[in-house]
Amino acid sequence: MAVISSITIRRARRGDVGVIVKMLADDPLGSARERIEDPLPPSYFRAFEAVEDDPNIQLVVAEDADGAVVGCLQLCVLPGLSSQGASRGLIEDVRVATHCRSRGIGEQLVQWAIAEARARSCKLVELLTHHTRVDAQRFYRRLGFQPSHVGMTLRF
Amino acid sequence: MAVISSITIRRARRGDVGVIVKMLADDPLGSARERIEDPLPPSYFRAFEAVEDDPNIQLVVAEDADGAVVGCLQLCVLPGLSSQGASRGLIEDVRVATHCRSRGIGEQLVQWAIAEARARSCKLVELLTHHTRVDAQRFYRRLGFQPSHVGMTLRF
Repeated sequence: MAVISSITIRRARRGDVGVIVKMLADDPLGSARERIEDPLPPSYFRAFEAVEDDPNIQLVVAEDADGAVVGCLQLCVLPGLSSQGASRGLIEDVRVATHCRSRGIGEQLVQWAIAEARARSCKLVELLTHHTRVDAQRFYRRLGFQPSHVGMTLRF
Repeated sequence: MAVISSITIRRARRGDVGVIVKMLADDPLGSARERIEDPLPPSYFRAFEAVEDDPNIQLVVAEDADGAVVGCLQLCVLPGLSSQGASRGLIEDVRVATHCRSRGIGEQLVQWAIAEARARSCKLVELLTHHTRVDAQRFYRRLGFQPSHVGMTLRF
């Protein structure tokens, strides 16, 4: 039987930036993109402040029963004219710490984001997942997402 | 030889909402989602105000030499921790009026968005395009985008 971890989802704080960046880096795609140094490059903290200042963006973390941060997710609620002026939710940067996977933490994070997007009157939640992340695609399908779109990227 | 329309790209104004919504609706996928009425449902104007109030979102239109609005695009610049705290640009709601297609208007709009995202220090521009929009995918590939991701959506 699957063990479901009991977590608390809360807004990320400045003190969480280090552990969030570690989770972003702990991944075949992310490891090449991040810089884990002590102290962390200040660009991470500037980005955290920009996220905090934006009322349409919520960076949240999953905290386990011991108060350790074991997952993260960023939700952007984006207004726009299409679909009769409905906002849409964009989910980004979903990560669960390696040693805590398969315990329902990612699912609780994504379900939180879906509920929050609904509460903020979105009619759609969307996300991009790398085409090689087949497990992630299966996970999102199980939560009701459809692979309806091609996610196209241009990296500078 | 292709005719390239000379256009001006400018921020959308409240008076443009009607023509933007018509372009959003003039499309097999969009027609079922929009409500073209006179007057337009107020939800469109509320969404326009939310877009205008958000410093990270720019809804722009392409105006032809006669001052007619013939295209639109929305660019969101989203801060986030990943990729060393680089913002990313999200392109949405790209439309060109039916009678003005194949004149380079969409390309000029997307190139504007790429340049703007770069100017705002993004390291990545991303977008979702419906899997049935094969022409759109070819168009974005030509502009340098890769179909690297699966775009997953959950519609309420």
